[in-house]
Amino acid sequence: MSLGLGVLGCGSVFAGPYRGMIARLGDRAHVAAVYDVDDRKRRGAAEHYGVDPDSAGPEAVIGSDEVDVVLVLTSMNEHGPLARAALEAGKHVLVEKPMATSLEEAAELLGLSERSEGLLVCAPHIVLSPTFRAIHAAVRGGEIGRLLNGRARYGWAGPDWGEWFYRPGGGSLFDLGVYNVTALCALFGPARRVTAMVGVAIPEREVNGEVVQVEADDNAQVLLDFGDGRFASVTTGFTMQRYRSPAIELYGSEGTIQLLGDDWAPEGWDMWRNADGAWRFHPESDPHWQWTEGLRHLVDCVERGRPTITRPEHALHALEIMLAAQACGRDGVAREIASGFPDPVYADDWLAAEHDRYAHDRRSHDGL
Amino acid sequence: MSLGLGVLGCGSVFAGPYRGMIARLGDRAHVAAVYDVDDRKRRGAAEHYGVDPDSAGPEAVIGSDEVDVVLVLTSMNEHGPLARAALEAGKHVLVEKPMATSLEEAAELLGLSERSEGLLVCAPHIVLSPTFRAIHAAVRGGEIGRLLNGRARYGWAGPDWGEWFYRPGGGSLFDLGVYNVTALCALFGPARRVTAMVGVAIPEREVNGEVVQVEADDNAQVLLDFGDGRFASVTTGFTMQRYRSPAIELYGSEGTIQLLGDDWAPEGWDMWRNADGAWRFHPESDPHWQWTEGLRHLVDCVERGRPTITRPEHALHALEIMLAAQACGRDGVAREIASGFPDPVYADDWLAAEHDRYAHDRRSHDGL
Amino acid sequence: MSLGLGVLGCGSVFAGPYRGMIARLGDRAHVAAVYDVDDRKRRGAAEHYGVDPDSAGPEAVIGSDEVDVVLVLTSMNEHGPLARAALEAGKHVLVEKPMATSLEEAAELLGLSERSEGLLVCAPHIVLSPTFRAIHAAVRGGEIGRLLNGRARYGWAGPDWGEWFYRPGGGSLFDLGVYNVTALCALFGPARRVTAMVGVAIPEREVNGEVVQVEADDNAQVLLDFGDGRFASVTTGFTMQRYRSPAIELYGSEGTIQLLGDDWAPEGWDMWRNADGAWRFHPESDPHWQWTEGLRHLVDCVERGRPTITRPEHALHALEIMLAAQACGRDGVAREIASGFPDPVYADDWLAAEHDRYAHDRRSHDGL
Amino acid sequence: MSLGLGVLGCGSVFAGPYRGMIARLGDRAHVAAVYDVDDRKRRGAAEHYGVDPDSAGPEAVIGSDEVDVVLVLTSMNEHGPLARAALEAGKHVLVEKPMATSLEEAAELLGLSERSEGLLVCAPHIVLSPTFRAIHAAVRGGEIGRLLNGRARYGWAGPDWGEWFYRPGGGSLFDLGVYNVTALCALFGPARRVTAMVGVAIPEREVNGEVVQVEADDNAQVLLDFGDGRFASVTTGFTMQRYRSPAIELYGSEGTIQLLGDDWAPEGWDMWRNADGAWRFHPESDPHWQWTEGLRHLVDCVERGRPTITRPEHALHALEIMLAAQACGRDGVAREIASGFPDPVYADDWLAAEHDRYAHDRRSHDGL
Repeated sequence: MSLGLGVLGCGSVFAGPYRGMIARLGDRAHVAAVYDVDDRKRRGAAEHYGVDPDSAGPEAVIGSDEVDVVLVLTSMNEHGPLARAALEAGKHVLVEKPMATSLEEAAELLGLSERSEGLLVCAPHIVLSPTFRAIHAAVRGGEIGRLLNGRARYGWAGPDWGEWFYRPGGGSLFDLGVYNVTALCALFGPARRVTAMVGVAIPEREVNGEVVQVEADDNAQVLLDFGDGRFASVTTGFTMQRYRSPAIELYGSEGTIQLLGDDWAPEGWDMWRNADGAWRFHPESDPHWQWTEGLRHLVDCVERGRPTITRPEHALHALEIMLAAQACGRDGVAREIASGFPDPVYADDWLAAEHDRYAHDRRSHDGL
Repeated sequence: MSLGLGVLGCGSVFAGPYRGMIARLGDRAHVAAVYDVDDRKRRGAAEHYGVDPDSAGPEAVIGSDEVDVVLVLTSMNEHGPLARAALEAGKHVLVEKPMATSLEEAAELLGLSERSEGLLVCAPHIVLSPTFRAIHAAVRGGEIGRLLNGRARYGWAGPDWGEWFYRPGGGSLFDLGVYNVTALCALFGPARRVTAMVGVAIPEREVNGEVVQVEADDNAQVLLDFGDGRFASVTTGFTMQRYRSPAIELYGSEGTIQLLGDDWAPEGWDMWRNADGAWRFHPESDPHWQWTEGLRHLVDCVERGRPTITRPEHALHALEIMLAAQACGRDGVAREIASGFPDPVYADDWLAAEHDRYAHDRRSHDGL
Repeated sequence: MSLGLGVLGCGSVFAGPYRGMIARLGDRAHVAAVYDVDDRKRRGAAEHYGVDPDSAGPEAVIGSDEVDVVLVLTSMNEHGPLARAALEAGKHVLVEKPMATSLEEAAELLGLSERSEGLLVCAPHIVLSPTFRAIHAAVRGGEIGRLLNGRARYGWAGPDWGEWFYRPGGGSLFDLGVYNVTALCALFGPARRVTAMVGVAIPEREVNGEVVQVEADDNAQVLLDFGDGRFASVTTGFTMQRYRSPAIELYGSEGTIQLLGDDWAPEGWDMWRNADGAWRFHPESDPHWQWTEGLRHLVDCVERGRPTITRPEHALHALEIMLAAQACGRDGVAREIASGFPDPVYADDWLAAEHDRYAHDRRSHDGL
Repeated sequence: MSLGLGVLGCGSVFAGPYRGMIARLGDRAHVAAVYDVDDRKRRGAAEHYGVDPDSAGPEAVIGSDEVDVVLVLTSMNEHGPLARAALEAGKHVLVEKPMATSLEEAAELLGLSERSEGLLVCAPHIVLSPTFRAIHAAVRGGEIGRLLNGRARYGWAGPDWGEWFYRPGGGSLFDLGVYNVTALCALFGPARRVTAMVGVAIPEREVNGEVVQVEADDNAQVLLDFGDGRFASVTTGFTMQRYRSPAIELYGSEGTIQLLGDDWAPEGWDMWRNADGAWRFHPESDPHWQWTEGLRHLVDCVERGRPTITRPEHALHALEIMLAAQACGRDGVAREIASGFPDPVYADDWLAAEHDRYAHDRRSHDGL
């Protein structure tokens, strides 16, 4: 049986990455309804999938009997309300980052997801990548001892489209920093305390050919305290033209692990163990892995009636950290973090399915 | 004329690195007097240089007519008082990091150095390395635009000797972090604000075969605010077994610069400029450069009657930052930084002398 | 108008890489007829494209009025005869490597292509990649002076399918070495002399689960003489499990250029110029570039009525070198090479089209 | 008891590298006599060591009762005769590369060394480096299976001093290629066959400010056949401005090993094993290792009355290969190689001594 997808928001996040993932899903899912406030985008998507171009708003998509899974890919402010409505309608939901813009809203979503029949999957989906799993397994297996210190970085020059990135509600911390925060916490466990410097380094930008005054942060440094004197830093911003450094560095009592590339687009990983006296570099095992894999995961879980590996609690925790970092950025005072989340558990049957997927992907990409 | 050196502290910092530098100086300087509270170390050094093994304390070394330059290489608490006494005696002074342990003491040294005949050189001397100078020149020359964000890291597993590293007054921030702080500020300019996480990640260590309770920080993350939304982070600790990442990363509005190796032992540097669309990797130009080059620089300046390129104000600024970071580590509240320092100016005649030194060093190392 | 493609050979080379390229061509081309001796493969391909599954042999495909372009993707021995028949029928032809298995056959093809209306494109298509073009431009522009010495390598553990790789007519030199030979000659110009060591290093292999006696070379080292004391080496084989070295190294009188990755799958390039005193690393500009781009190029040239940039003379030259290398491998005597070929000329309008293609590819891959 | 060294040839090879090694030997050896045809060089060396500046020719040095070990560091043509005279006089001999310029002369030296009381050590000494030993152990231990294919490279822009490099008897093959040939054979075992391209790529050079016509090879590619279809190539020349590639690549049936840096100045090594699915990079364990370590080794063996680990048969084998390569370079016909040599055996007591040396070196360099 093919799952019906309802797409809310047909902009750039949908047009390339999620559309590609939907194509990869083949018979397992189909687009049943789409909505976008922008007429042109809505009609384009509707035409592409042969669905009604005149759906009567997001409510209609959510309410449609044809729709099993709702994809919330709109601008940030609508994430929370739309995900909520979809869960209330008993649908499965994939919501892009951030799951919501306030902690209250996120907590409500979390509660709903526990009571609802629908599964809730929140981006980013990076803990699903084979490289991330390998690192998680190495860390939990004690390969580098106890994690003591860490660094992560993700940034670029920033978009020259999408004014909203630079408006209140946008910003580099929510758009980029969320990946590093999510990744570090998945490895260290929940953070207990946060401090940060957050600001605007480039006050004027050209966006779609027009000069824009930047109102949201485009530059940030965040510190995380994992208790027992164990820390990590996140460096992010629309202020980083290029880098040639590991995305994530984990300093353990017996060794070091580095994730190369970016955490959402890994290029292998490196491990030093004192006991080895050597670096082990693992070339990227799955170069075709996509940061939209969360959708395939959701489809998997719906098909099998299984809980998801990525947990909404994790997304809520990342949100609490980012909101706290913004607050620290204003007054310079560190914040305690109240929320927690369970450690990712990679179920054996999922790993087996992943293995099959990878073999298939490789075959279709390499033509073997 | 050969300058007379008076050495205070004949421990590990002296025994290898400074002894090697003194040998490189050849006829330009000689050890005229030595002191160490440890009888064995003092006698060993005295015998090596053929000087009196029974000098009557540091005062006698400082007071000796044979001594032109005093090297303060003792444990941290004595740095300030000994440097002060030496300056008051009209001597030139090289003081290892930190120049003092309180800001007041440092300010007094600074004042004294302005009134005294003697020159004051404070470690670390990293801004003197050819690689650092090349990076400083590239940044000041606008090669990567305005500096917006940065990272630096320096750490290792920590010493298994020298209990004092883990006692109050020791710690990784003062021992290691000082390099990164000094380097970043030399490039960004004075920091205006600081916050940090500072703690003990490994509560018990084996030192010289005995278990020690760790009382000073062995793990730290420091954030620096350079104004106008421009930040940098420093990651340091006796908690980092190995790394394979740049020592310093500078993110400018037009490109990126990375210093490879460690800031006190560079292994070349890398620059991305958007205008180039390529990374330029500059292999290390001076692999024999030593972090004790400050001594040669001091001898140079004394010989020529010239001011030093490294400035005590810079060392004081680093000290203020580290003391503030420790305070933030306790209460989580960011601190303003009051002090400043002048930008390093690499005088032409010094650059010419460096060029000669390098040609000579290379010849004697490579046997050409 | 959409060009009709006739596919001869529906095996692994077709199934993945060329099928993918045909998909990328969109409306510009469509599969009009297919043939494979293997029933299952032929029917699979026919079904995929909705064409007649029972075509009466390659002649029928070649003779079909619906077919404008013939793709010769069969086993090596048939390349020459099929390409010849297609050219004689006035069709455009893309032939996989090698264009033929004897020099006479290749010369005949070359002659035919000059008289025929059809264009002839011979794999490999590596000189079309943006990275290769950039290197070619740098070399021709004198960036590293006169080319004096070079190295290239391409190898892997070897296929565990396709017994024919290890039978007479197969071998690592024809399957793998051809890339390096083609690339080096495109940069140095025609080779004048060859010597080689060619042999069997692993006498027994498991292929499709059965033990096979290896009869064709699986290991080779080839030396090329470009005149005036200028040389290059090619290292190839089904004997190389992994590497972490440049694919191509070019040593010029004023610098060095390195192509990273493999020549058919570049991962950027590196240039040292003595005048710079630095390495310039150019990250891969077109990570989605495919080694089947020759097909798009052929379609381009047909549409515009333009000559092809890749020249059959170049393929013939590579063939002469490989046949000579095999002969040297038998008797240890170096061979003169008689053939030549014109330097690739990258026409401006093609470069412009490439630029558009790249922008489009990037957009559809990244979803921008 | 301190061994007396007699130095024949006080030019650039002596002045830096061997002088440094003699200093490292401390009390174990002293320079007892020196000779150089160049008055200035002879007097300079004599003065430095406080020995007679007017020694009556090499015979006097060889005949001196004070001399236990003769160092033959002259120009190439004299290596054979001087080493022979020294062995006949019952002295221990270290001879720089090549041990002789004809095979007959080399064979005579070899015979003499077997009958003489004196030990004979022939440069290059690269098989003594810790990194080389680690690779040799990994290969012999079967870590990457059976060696099937290999590459090595060593070259640079070439000297702008010492006209003799470019005169008959000089050349890049003897000066540079000898390292790669020696290293590859130490790992693969004796070569059975050779072919090569050898020539002059830069016909005119500036040497000591004057234009010189180049008469000896400055560019070479050599192929080695180790039997059973197993090959390796050597790329060398005064034609290579820079590189960024492994010095040695070893392709085995189960994995790959790479030596980084240059074989005479290793910078760690890398190993891929199929069974690991990862690269293991071993950072350089002994960055202060010198290519003149053969002298220390000779002193060790004399002191302990032990045979040397490096064998003159190995040097003779390398010489036969290079002479054959030059001949192939002239007529393009591959040559069989007749000589062999025993595999290096790293004795346990020597390994223990090395371990002590390394600990001491590190301490004196790092000042621990």
